Amino acid sequence: MGVESDVKPDSVALHPVGATGAPEVMGIFGTGDLGRSLGLRLLQSGYRVVYGSRRPHSCGPVPQGAEVASHAEAAKEASLIFVCVHREHYDFLTTLTPHLKGKVLVDLSNNLKKGIYPEANAAYLQRLVPGADVVKGLNTLSAWALQNGLLAGKQVYLCGNSANAKQAVSEMATKLGLTVLDRGSLSAARELEDFPLRLFPEWRLPLLVAACLMGFFYFYLLIRDVIYAYVETGQDISYRIMISLANKVFPIVSLVMLSLCYLPGCIAAFLQLYRGTKYKRFPNWLDRWMLCRKQMGLVALGLALLHAIYTFIIPIRYAVRHKLISRVVDEMKNNKTTPFYFDNKEAWGTDSFYVLGILGFFLYLLLGLTSLPSVGGSLSWREFSFVQSKLGHLTLSICTAHGYIYGWNKFLRPSTYKWYTPPGYMLCLIVPSVVLVLKILLLLPCVDRALTRIRQGWERNPPLIEVNKASSL
Amino acid sequence: MGVESDVKPDSVALHPVGATGAPEVMGIFGTGDLGRSLGLRLLQSGYRVVYGSRRPHSCGPVPQGAEVASHAEAAKEASLIFVCVHREHYDFLTTLTPHLKGKVLVDLSNNLKKGIYPEANAAYLQRLVPGADVVKGLNTLSAWALQNGLLAGKQVYLCGNSANAKQAVSEMATKLGLTVLDRGSLSAARELEDFPLRLFPEWRLPLLVAACLMGFFYFYLLIRDVIYAYVETGQDISYRIMISLANKVFPIVSLVMLSLCYLPGCIAAFLQLYRGTKYKRFPNWLDRWMLCRKQMGLVALGLALLHAIYTFIIPIRYAVRHKLISRVVDEMKNNKTTPFYFDNKEAWGTDSFYVLGILGFFLYLLLGLTSLPSVGGSLSWREFSFVQSKLGHLTLSICTAHGYIYGWNKFLRPSTYKWYTPPGYMLCLIVPSVVLVLKILLLLPCVDRALTRIRQGWERNPPLIEVNKASSL
Amino acid sequence: MGVESDVKPDSVALHPVGATGAPEVMGIFGTGDLGRSLGLRLLQSGYRVVYGSRRPHSCGPVPQGAEVASHAEAAKEASLIFVCVHREHYDFLTTLTPHLKGKVLVDLSNNLKKGIYPEANAAYLQRLVPGADVVKGLNTLSAWALQNGLLAGKQVYLCGNSANAKQAVSEMATKLGLTVLDRGSLSAARELEDFPLRLFPEWRLPLLVAACLMGFFYFYLLIRDVIYAYVETGQDISYRIMISLANKVFPIVSLVMLSLCYLPGCIAAFLQLYRGTKYKRFPNWLDRWMLCRKQMGLVALGLALLHAIYTFIIPIRYAVRHKLISRVVDEMKNNKTTPFYFDNKEAWGTDSFYVLGILGFFLYLLLGLTSLPSVGGSLSWREFSFVQSKLGHLTLSICTAHGYIYGWNKFLRPSTYKWYTPPGYMLCLIVPSVVLVLKILLLLPCVDRALTRIRQGWERNPPLIEVNKASSL
Ligand SMILES: Cc1cc2nc3c(=O)[nH]c(=O)nc-3n(C[C@H](O)[C@H](O)[C@H](O)COP(=O)(O)OP(=O)(O)OC[C@H]3O[C@@H](n4cnc5c(N)ncnc54)[C@H](O)[C@@H]3O)c2cc1C
Ligand SMILES: Cc1cc2nc3c(=O)[nH]c(=O)nc-3n(C[C@H](O)[C@H](O)[C@H](O)COP(=O)(O)OP(=O)(O)OC[C@H]3O[C@@H](n4cnc5c(N)ncnc54)[C@H](O)[C@@H]3O)c2cc1C
Ligand SMILES: Cc1cc2nc3c(=O)[nH]c(=O)nc-3n(C[C@H](O)[C@H](O)[C@H](O)COP(=O)(O)OP(=O)(O)OC[C@H]3O[C@@H](n4cnc5c(N)ncnc54)[C@H](O)[C@@H]3O)c2cc1C
Repeated sequence: MGVESDVKPDSVALHPVGATGAPEVMGIFGTGDLGRSLGLRLLQSGYRVVYGSRRPHSCGPVPQGAEVASHAEAAKEASLIFVCVHREHYDFLTTLTPHLKGKVLVDLSNNLKKGIYPEANAAYLQRLVPGADVVKGLNTLSAWALQNGLLAGKQVYLCGNSANAKQAVSEMATKLGLTVLDRGSLSAARELEDFPLRLFPEWRLPLLVAACLMGFFYFYLLIRDVIYAYVETGQDISYRIMISLANKVFPIVSLVMLSLCYLPGCIAAFLQLYRGTKYKRFPNWLDRWMLCRKQMGLVALGLALLHAIYTFIIPIRYAVRHKLISRVVDEMKNNKTTPFYFDNKEAWGTDSFYVLGILGFFLYLLLGLTSLPSVGGSLSWREFSFVQSKLGHLTLSICTAHGYIYGWNKFLRPSTYKWYTPPGYMLCLIVPSVVLVLKILLLLPCVDRALTRIRQGWERNPPLIEVNKASSL
Repeated sequence: MGVESDVKPDSVALHPVGATGAPEVMGIFGTGDLGRSLGLRLLQSGYRVVYGSRRPHSCGPVPQGAEVASHAEAAKEASLIFVCVHREHYDFLTTLTPHLKGKVLVDLSNNLKKGIYPEANAAYLQRLVPGADVVKGLNTLSAWALQNGLLAGKQVYLCGNSANAKQAVSEMATKLGLTVLDRGSLSAARELEDFPLRLFPEWRLPLLVAACLMGFFYFYLLIRDVIYAYVETGQDISYRIMISLANKVFPIVSLVMLSLCYLPGCIAAFLQLYRGTKYKRFPNWLDRWMLCRKQMGLVALGLALLHAIYTFIIPIRYAVRHKLISRVVDEMKNNKTTPFYFDNKEAWGTDSFYVLGILGFFLYLLLGLTSLPSVGGSLSWREFSFVQSKLGHLTLSICTAHGYIYGWNKFLRPSTYKWYTPPGYMLCLIVPSVVLVLKILLLLPCVDRALTRIRQGWERNPPLIEVNKASSL
Repeated sequence: MGVESDVKPDSVALHPVGATGAPEVMGIFGTGDLGRSLGLRLLQSGYRVVYGSRRPHSCGPVPQGAEVASHAEAAKEASLIFVCVHREHYDFLTTLTPHLKGKVLVDLSNNLKKGIYPEANAAYLQRLVPGADVVKGLNTLSAWALQNGLLAGKQVYLCGNSANAKQAVSEMATKLGLTVLDRGSLSAARELEDFPLRLFPEWRLPLLVAACLMGFFYFYLLIRDVIYAYVETGQDISYRIMISLANKVFPIVSLVMLSLCYLPGCIAAFLQLYRGTKYKRFPNWLDRWMLCRKQMGLVALGLALLHAIYTFIIPIRYAVRHKLISRVVDEMKNNKTTPFYFDNKEAWGTDSFYVLGILGFFLYLLLGLTSLPSVGGSLSWREFSFVQSKLGHLTLSICTAHGYIYGWNKFLRPSTYKWYTPPGYMLCLIVPSVVLVLKILLLLPCVDRALTRIRQGWERNPPLIEVNKASSL
């Protein structure tokens, strides 16, 4: 009977016309931020709203058009009640159990931290008011989003033990413009309550990888540059730590991270070729790796951006200006003529180096742009994968070439290998080069053909017997 | 009767199965851009569309599949009619009143400016055709959005005096993928008509603040730099107005605006602490201020970006190159050796200054990125507030440090205080410093604990009596 | 009874009323990526899912909660079946025809390329299983989007010969959070299948125009700069090809493309003025041009960004440093004093040049920002057109001024016209200047008034007779 009243407004035709005029009543316990915003929104969607408050006559502002009553009165009027109070204050509900019998209670609560209570809030609520049908959900909505009408198309989760209760909440949510996903029984409440407490879980691994790589390369370059200079020549070039070193570490790690975006795709392809089927799951580590490629790529883009900015400010640095001036004065004093000789090869070399860097960065930005949800969402699958996969590999090639040109005339000079260690940019070229070679192998017509067939469902060892069984049914 | 049958497809169960095949008829008056696009869209959603036109045989192109008839004929066929003509041409409808009796008329019109007519367009329409049920709405949709199918999930407002009429329009709109918000009776029409004429209302205050600050600091620096130099030494350095001055004003105002984003949060917190409850409304000015923090932040980001670009082009400026060259030549002539001495402290100082600036700018960009609707919308509340609040305060700290380092060795030099005025960057450090100090106070464990309790609903003077009353019901 | 009727609309027609508690069964043929993700999603929306597999006992992982059966058994249980196998494997369905009679088959398949088969996949499927109702659709969804719940509000197309079948699929899709557009009978299947294979169709023309312009200007400048220098003075300045030339071509083409964004609007306005009505279609070429303005603008922005980056790295280029050093040394040797004279006019000129460039670029970025779908979508129509049209014309003016200042003192110098050809920047100023002049004409009060009247529906030669006919009905 409770449920009856919550037919969707749409189904007008089912009721005598007079009945449709009367909007359904929604109850809200709590007149805090969330309660107020939710009430406003429900009013806008055509519901009547009754607040239940500890002090109905001085409960602070409620949205225009809403009514305020005591908790018990509100409970009587509405068949669906939103509980917008903190779990810490739930106990008052026990006094209301008779009024709440058969009502749908929506628990929207969140906690401040994970695992402070042994029981999910919604489960606790159900235990307090056993006669009501508790539905957990909508707890990912913030008061702010509700107030600013940013719900359209947003996805929310529900769970609860009563299918009818969930149905009623789901219809209300649909009317608010939300998309509802059912997560099953109330035992999923804990999971739903942990949801808004997530803090970038999918960013952890990429950030960790980036941090480790940066730490390693920073230390490595510190030894090779600053400490080497100090030990061998007694020079103090520690000021380089701030910018020069960072501006080497950033591009190095960015390039490695970029290639780590494209390595798992190659590994997956070779695995499929080796197994001769696409119907076997990838190992777990590969799956996880593939799922965080977006974040890896964006971290790489961030580092590339830092590299770009660090490069732009090079000429205004004190050390650089000083070097330039000293060099001129030096030249003059020694009256050498070498500097006046314009080395065409050097000009071509450095300019190519810069051009590759700029183009690589530009493509990087394009990749980043298409990974904005609203841009990516407006692309067809083929367009998205054209940008991410084709242009992505092009980006990787160009950035790798940028790295190679940097060292073009230094690879064979012994002075490059201070203390017998290779410079940083050589180390960082290893992974990208491997990825590019693997990719080229995959593009060989014969390999490509085999792979395409496998991805269309062909299997080297098809399960013959079962096919027959199935079709004989 | 027409209306009944065109309930949403959902209501399949109401009709004999055969009937569902026949699509509902929608009428459209007007074959302009909007009429055409709307018709196309209705056809795509499975409706039949009949245009009413002044000249049914030469009305220009209509979408394929639509019919064209005279206004009267179209009115007869459809129970729901969209009026896609300008208000200036509404009078022809008076001749159709008999045909429009009991029909739902949707008024989608907008005006060119606010307040040119004493009456809302929809109210005027209702007065012209009293027998019809006028619904105002969908007027925020542009022909362009309709044509390009950009409706999915968009929010539209409706108002009207007949609940059934609104219901019918709302079902149609839902089928087009829109989310409908009911704004009440036709008296809200004016408000709905003013909606598409809004021009960045929430940007006005932040832009005004920025403009005032920029005006003030520009003038202040003009006096201290250019006019001071002219008066005291007779030098004409007016060329500095274009870039050097601007490149001081931008970062100064950016930093002040950034701190103005975080100041209201601190004020709100202290207010809650002082009042001992979160259930009292903030004063109006604070509310308004808090609501435009996003725009303040984005203006600050814009200024920071300009500062960055201005800084990047410093070395290619004529004046800067000239100074560099003159300096070298000078050095040579005087055969001084000072410039050749490399000042390690200076190198560290300036490099730290740049690094802080770059990192601050990078974090600024992150804040800006997450305020893109599609990015912000994909974050959980905790993630969003982690970025905006935690990283935001970090950004403020770093940018403030950037400011302090700029003046690190100048604070105590008397020559800094030309005409007894402090330089601009000192002035601009005041507000950020205050905000940071307030924030640190709020982070003290005892203050933080009290605040958290208050925000969870605890009150220093709870309204005891009413609680009892409520629970005794 | 109310409750019953408001069970998920879907189930209504299919099940006896009592059954509403029992979720509807959906069948999926194929346990590949797409099948798995779709199943997961259906489960989340409250459906029961039965997979049909060649080898029900070893078909790999299916989402938790789904059942696996042979194809025939799955077909028996579900009334709606998704075919998630490649067209190449459709033939197994012929063996199932008896079980598929009267069922709805949803064909989600895509091909690898356009036009490899004479017949659309869905038409082929219908031919194989004539007794079933085939619906083509949802094929624009990727497994990835399904898995990550990125469906909310997305738009999908359907087509099919049976209205009831389409209705059933459409209800399911709506429940998944999708917005459905009906594209008619199964003959539209080909079109729907080509949809995901689109590769930036609306970008082709703008990119082609940009490529042609860049090719032309590159060649033109190559002759005027590098080849001219080689022929006339024997100097080899070929190293300029990499950066100096590119950094002239980018801004030139960017400015031309930008003005090409605003030219069609002017042409359209003059056409409307000339015709005296807005009810005539624009010629096809103008329509096409106007539809790709967004892409033109974004290409222009890309080139402007490249121009900016190329400019930022000027001072760290070898050639530039070399020139600086040589110049100083030169000065010293000749003991000239000219360089020490600070040319105030030059300082003002170059600084203004840079400032205009920076401001233009900044406005460019704003235009680009608002064309992000999520940002543009949150603006009212007036706001969007304020930015795109008003700020857009401002951007064009500023960038054009940037171009004029570049040549301010060179227009009258004969040495500018090498081999009697004007320099590139002069050529590129032609189109923007024309656009600005046209725009100024359109802003003249008398012209503006006439245009506004026309756009509100006024016609110079209204079709008098038909109006009377219509109103006499
Ligand atoms: C700035 C930046 C932003 C990025 N943003 C994103 C982002 O938003 N989203 C994202 O996903 N990545 C993103 N990335 C990472 C990267 O660009 C993509 O993951 C890219 O698609 C990887 O390309 P790929 O060709 O290696 O992989 P994919 O094209 O995904 O293919 C990977 C592997 O999957 C398998 N495979 C492919 N197709 C099929 C099939 N039909 N059947 C079975 N198996 C198949 C194959 O083994 C293939 O090699 C970003 C990177 C950067 C640098
Ligand atoms: C580039 C840029 C972009 C920005 N974009 C945005 C944006 O998109 N959206 C936006 O809002 N801001 C934006 N800002 C502004 C700013 O970053 C945010 O407003 C930021 O959240 C303010 O942080 P805060 O900690 O001061 O405020 P908040 O985290 O909002 O808290 C402010 C105050 O509200 C009160 N409060 C907080 N939680 C509760 C609670 N549970 N109950 C009762 N009271 C509470 C407290 O008094 C608190 O101090 C942007 C800033 C910049 C620089
Ligand atoms: C970086 C960048 C991004 C861009 N992004 C976009 C984008 O996202 N979307 C986009 O469309 N463009 C975009 N553009 C292109 C350009 O800015 C716009 O097309 C801009 O709106 C054109 O302005 P306009 O005044 O010439 O045209 P409009 O304002 O569209 O008007 C064009 C012509 O249409 C006709 N017209 C206008 N109003 C009416 C009316 N009510 N009735 C009948 N006819 C009328 C008139 O003839 C008018 O002159 C972008 C450009 C750049 C540089």
